Amino acid sequence: MRALIYHGPGRKSWDEVPDPTIKYPTDVIVRMDTTTICGTDLHILKGDVPAVTEGRILGHEGVGTVTEVGSGVTKVGIGDRVILSCITACGRCSYCQQGLYAHCLADEGASGIGWIFGHLIDGTQAEYVRVPFADTSVHKLPDGLSDDATVMLSDILPTGFEIGVRNGGTKPGDVVAVVGSGPIGLAVMMTLGLYGASRIIAVDLDDNRIEQAKAFGATDGVNSGSDGWQEKVRQLTDDGLGVDVAVEAVGIPTTLQGCTEIIRPGGHVANVGVHGHPVELAMQDLWIKDVTITTGLVSTSTTPMLLKLVAQHKIPAEKFATHHFRFDQMLDAYDTFERAAETKALKVVISR
Amino acid sequence: MRALIYHGPGRKSWDEVPDPTIKYPTDVIVRMDTTTICGTDLHILKGDVPAVTEGRILGHEGVGTVTEVGSGVTKVGIGDRVILSCITACGRCSYCQQGLYAHCLADEGASGIGWIFGHLIDGTQAEYVRVPFADTSVHKLPDGLSDDATVMLSDILPTGFEIGVRNGGTKPGDVVAVVGSGPIGLAVMMTLGLYGASRIIAVDLDDNRIEQAKAFGATDGVNSGSDGWQEKVRQLTDDGLGVDVAVEAVGIPTTLQGCTEIIRPGGHVANVGVHGHPVELAMQDLWIKDVTITTGLVSTSTTPMLLKLVAQHKIPAEKFATHHFRFDQMLDAYDTFERAAETKALKVVISR
Amino acid sequence: MRALIYHGPGRKSWDEVPDPTIKYPTDVIVRMDTTTICGTDLHILKGDVPAVTEGRILGHEGVGTVTEVGSGVTKVGIGDRVILSCITACGRCSYCQQGLYAHCLADEGASGIGWIFGHLIDGTQAEYVRVPFADTSVHKLPDGLSDDATVMLSDILPTGFEIGVRNGGTKPGDVVAVVGSGPIGLAVMMTLGLYGASRIIAVDLDDNRIEQAKAFGATDGVNSGSDGWQEKVRQLTDDGLGVDVAVEAVGIPTTLQGCTEIIRPGGHVANVGVHGHPVELAMQDLWIKDVTITTGLVSTSTTPMLLKLVAQHKIPAEKFATHHFRFDQMLDAYDTFERAAETKALKVVISR
Amino acid sequence: MRALIYHGPGRKSWDEVPDPTIKYPTDVIVRMDTTTICGTDLHILKGDVPAVTEGRILGHEGVGTVTEVGSGVTKVGIGDRVILSCITACGRCSYCQQGLYAHCLADEGASGIGWIFGHLIDGTQAEYVRVPFADTSVHKLPDGLSDDATVMLSDILPTGFEIGVRNGGTKPGDVVAVVGSGPIGLAVMMTLGLYGASRIIAVDLDDNRIEQAKAFGATDGVNSGSDGWQEKVRQLTDDGLGVDVAVEAVGIPTTLQGCTEIIRPGGHVANVGVHGHPVELAMQDLWIKDVTITTGLVSTSTTPMLLKLVAQHKIPAEKFATHHFRFDQMLDAYDTFERAAETKALKVVISR
Repeated sequence: MRALIYHGPGRKSWDEVPDPTIKYPTDVIVRMDTTTICGTDLHILKGDVPAVTEGRILGHEGVGTVTEVGSGVTKVGIGDRVILSCITACGRCSYCQQGLYAHCLADEGASGIGWIFGHLIDGTQAEYVRVPFADTSVHKLPDGLSDDATVMLSDILPTGFEIGVRNGGTKPGDVVAVVGSGPIGLAVMMTLGLYGASRIIAVDLDDNRIEQAKAFGATDGVNSGSDGWQEKVRQLTDDGLGVDVAVEAVGIPTTLQGCTEIIRPGGHVANVGVHGHPVELAMQDLWIKDVTITTGLVSTSTTPMLLKLVAQHKIPAEKFATHHFRFDQMLDAYDTFERAAETKALKVVISR
Repeated sequence: MRALIYHGPGRKSWDEVPDPTIKYPTDVIVRMDTTTICGTDLHILKGDVPAVTEGRILGHEGVGTVTEVGSGVTKVGIGDRVILSCITACGRCSYCQQGLYAHCLADEGASGIGWIFGHLIDGTQAEYVRVPFADTSVHKLPDGLSDDATVMLSDILPTGFEIGVRNGGTKPGDVVAVVGSGPIGLAVMMTLGLYGASRIIAVDLDDNRIEQAKAFGATDGVNSGSDGWQEKVRQLTDDGLGVDVAVEAVGIPTTLQGCTEIIRPGGHVANVGVHGHPVELAMQDLWIKDVTITTGLVSTSTTPMLLKLVAQHKIPAEKFATHHFRFDQMLDAYDTFERAAETKALKVVISR
Repeated sequence: MRALIYHGPGRKSWDEVPDPTIKYPTDVIVRMDTTTICGTDLHILKGDVPAVTEGRILGHEGVGTVTEVGSGVTKVGIGDRVILSCITACGRCSYCQQGLYAHCLADEGASGIGWIFGHLIDGTQAEYVRVPFADTSVHKLPDGLSDDATVMLSDILPTGFEIGVRNGGTKPGDVVAVVGSGPIGLAVMMTLGLYGASRIIAVDLDDNRIEQAKAFGATDGVNSGSDGWQEKVRQLTDDGLGVDVAVEAVGIPTTLQGCTEIIRPGGHVANVGVHGHPVELAMQDLWIKDVTITTGLVSTSTTPMLLKLVAQHKIPAEKFATHHFRFDQMLDAYDTFERAAETKALKVVISR
Repeated sequence: MRALIYHGPGRKSWDEVPDPTIKYPTDVIVRMDTTTICGTDLHILKGDVPAVTEGRILGHEGVGTVTEVGSGVTKVGIGDRVILSCITACGRCSYCQQGLYAHCLADEGASGIGWIFGHLIDGTQAEYVRVPFADTSVHKLPDGLSDDATVMLSDILPTGFEIGVRNGGTKPGDVVAVVGSGPIGLAVMMTLGLYGASRIIAVDLDDNRIEQAKAFGATDGVNSGSDGWQEKVRQLTDDGLGVDVAVEAVGIPTTLQGCTEIIRPGGHVANVGVHGHPVELAMQDLWIKDVTITTGLVSTSTTPMLLKLVAQHKIPAEKFATHHFRFDQMLDAYDTFERAAETKALKVVISR
């Protein structure tokens, strides 16, 4: 088969490699119908994730069709069309029993992490993929749903919802600021309605992205390049005391610090961004403020629920699919996604 | 002033009576701009609520303008336009401190009940009304909102949301059946989206009401006059095991029993209906089913939150205002509301 | 091996039968070290549970040692000393994913019920037992804990805690009445401290049982055979309005009705008892009272947590072990447990 | 009357000053029976809290007897023995309505803060004190409870419980580390049992304090002056992954950082300490760890609940009262409390 191979920092290829085979009784083999590229894949390609070794097939998102089934698999069969979760979960360890699949302790996870596709084992940017713990890691698709919509359920939508909306403790009527209007920030905005946010404020340095955010649920926008942007955000709340929830969707110190400046006493800061550096927090102000700050990696425990809402047309997930490619255009797809500022790509969809 | 007076079972009049005056330092006097009629008012007129004595001014809903302020009032002033909550709350007793204003223990409540307007003290179907505990019982209105929309925040919308949606433990993705598509059932449907319900099933004996429900949020309908309606409801869930939440919005034994038949293991039944008789529950089936059954009187603690959503045009509350009258047409308004089956009245709006 | 066999209503024997064998890759075989008898076993023997067919080995509680392991089992090995949960959970179905193992949808459960031991498959009152879904249904024991204590974690302690204490929404400071001071009521009392109950009122018809309850955590007692017992319970709360939580631990109409009479507005009734008949509830009073009524079958999802507390000597579980027998005295053990009123047996412990 | 007056940094006196008088209808005057000194008072005396102006009477804790009542007060009367909360709450603003009294927006609070006693208005280290918003700020005492116990309910016990135990999301079975074994850390330990912690690990630089902590609920201790103390804490959990909850009870960067190093994935860090400086958090490690970090000022909303538990002898609050003084020994009391390292004072109790 062909697959996207990592050859060390800065080097990748769309290569012929051996087909995957069943390794454990709980595995299935899936023929990929559609995959996509995540910002994390770009980080890996820069060499930022040393656990990824040369020769690894990248990718942790996708929908496909089951072609082979291990002897211990009971819930999926050959021919089933499935979503692959970016998180594979053994379903048996203490973390899986709590629904915290992100920290699955199973052997294949090795390090107490449920994200292993395209990281510690071969991933989904390939014609076929071996899926471990299939019974607890794939989701059967009902008929009639597009790949464009359902591939967004592998990672971006559950991440936005679980780590942004839900960790933020969003309640009906809340005013929520989302700092960062890239794909993940937009996924937060698209799912904020599930807890009845009254106002959704898109905060970004780029006015075009703020404008685009309004198609994803934002009701207001504030450019964080402007002086006193924090006060402008606070003024969008009835009493000027700040937002109920601030979601960090960038991953740098200033955006997280900004979140702590715009929340009201009693508010929540939900960090979604991937950070590479320490962040200094103004604890001399925050200790008294009754704030809650959360972090997290998606567990994808809400994927079945989000799938129901996609099927009911309550979440227009396909809006993220801005560009389409065939598998043999995988390198073009990467190119388009890497130049997102220019191409305006949100998610590039690569299909058989 | 003029007011709607209860003269014992079956007898009412629109009479000249003395204007109300400040009685306690925490009172305000409000000139009513708009009021409406509740099903409970009809119950009182039938003589079903013996605590209501002859001579009582009825009504517990309305918006108006403050004309006089007690010496202990700090949060509202003369000229403020306010929503009157159907529940008046002292803000100081143990129940108020928990936000359970429905069971306020204050003296004016007398019996541990926060609903006293048009019940234990004179009500809002009048040109003026004395409002006790004003600081914790009225809500200032922002400019630009219609009486048609905001008068629905006195009772029907918080009742539907608090006792139906929230007591039902509704979660994103839930399939919810609302048994009874009268005004209160519709208020449940209109606010179910605040917790992201995926499907909303209107259950009623009348196909016209089921059809109407779709304008209030219902995605599906089942006529409960048909054989096996319970199974039809269950079939609207992915696995056929029943709905996540069933809301009872009628108040008779068969509808509550029906709710317990259509919920899935682990589901919630939220009773909103006012019952006059005992109800036999099939505990031989229910004990093992992990069900939660809730009851309640609205506390109106969510009124400020719902007001924000009305202001943001996320709740089209004015849809309930099907008929309009002037104060001097109060008796016509009652007539229209009493013949709702025929007039199709949901809420009749009576304004100065 | 020898096992306790059900031969139809009223007939049982301690018989020689074939040893169990591995049937599915997810099974283990456990040599039973200790088992016990549950009130449910007595119900089965009366013929009250028609799903139990003749020839079935009874019992759903026990601790033992793993002697054989299926090919798909990863978390337990031969020689491991384990607690068997009364609930076996596949860990993969939608109910298991929510932690509602009581309603496991797996094939062996057949009917959406996780309790299959001694019910739909052979049980634990035997020298050996086949355990399905072992990875998600047994709990490894740390060294140094007695069988007397740990066998109580198969059923009675998680049932009391999950269905009584936790479903009751017990909060620190709550006044809790437990109606019924039999073994299951005592298990509720023993675990009520985990949520900081301030007062625990044992309600029973038998003063001796009320007295005994004080050794299990009760701070007060009320005999429900006396006139006005409900008022006596209410008077044990600061304001006389009723208890925060009432736990039904009997399973008959009058005790459940009594619970609804002693709770305060806003309170919770947690039904633990197994009911055989419908129960009439006074909805004409309850609709306005903001009550929550819950039912449930234990999921045993809290067993690992309770095991930690037993290991830390914070739950003296061994107090339930009032009588001890050897396996070859199984029929004597049944006799002692059946005559509990006379023998004062709480749990009879039967060991190899 | 006499009172402890702040005369600017480093200067205080026990002076004759005018008696307080009723200023607003919601005030009462309380004759202080017992007061105590808080670490915050020492901060004020160092000049660290510039909002405190010269001439201010210090103190925000105490029990006393009502001697005068404003015209708008309905819940307390002359002669009532009451606990004064360190937080005074108007009961009417949006924060009070949510129970977040710490951020009361009332005029007397001026800055959205409920702590005004001995800060923005005269405090409780005096023979008499004016108490604003008495109906929602004092708690009537039942007979028979000592001042030694109940004075701990003004601040230290609700702070430990609300900001440590409850913000930490403590659940039954949790392993909890409390970093800092001073009075506030001990208050956390004393109330951790209310949510059923299985292990309570006292972390401190001083072995004597660790030893003392065992009388307040600690089951284990680790000296944080030793190398690899974080690993020692982690080893006290079953799987070595870290504690469920880490409570910061010091207020300096290293202790907060330490808390983030000892919690397990999915764990909670509850900050109780008062910080004077920013703190750098290792977000490059924490972003993926599913941690929740909380801060807060006590709201004293749990004081009535804690009072019930003190009355039921479930919380031995009087253990904090290590030293006793008369009012005219106020300066000696300060001296003893300032030299706590030497005098071993936890709380100094000063009574009429």
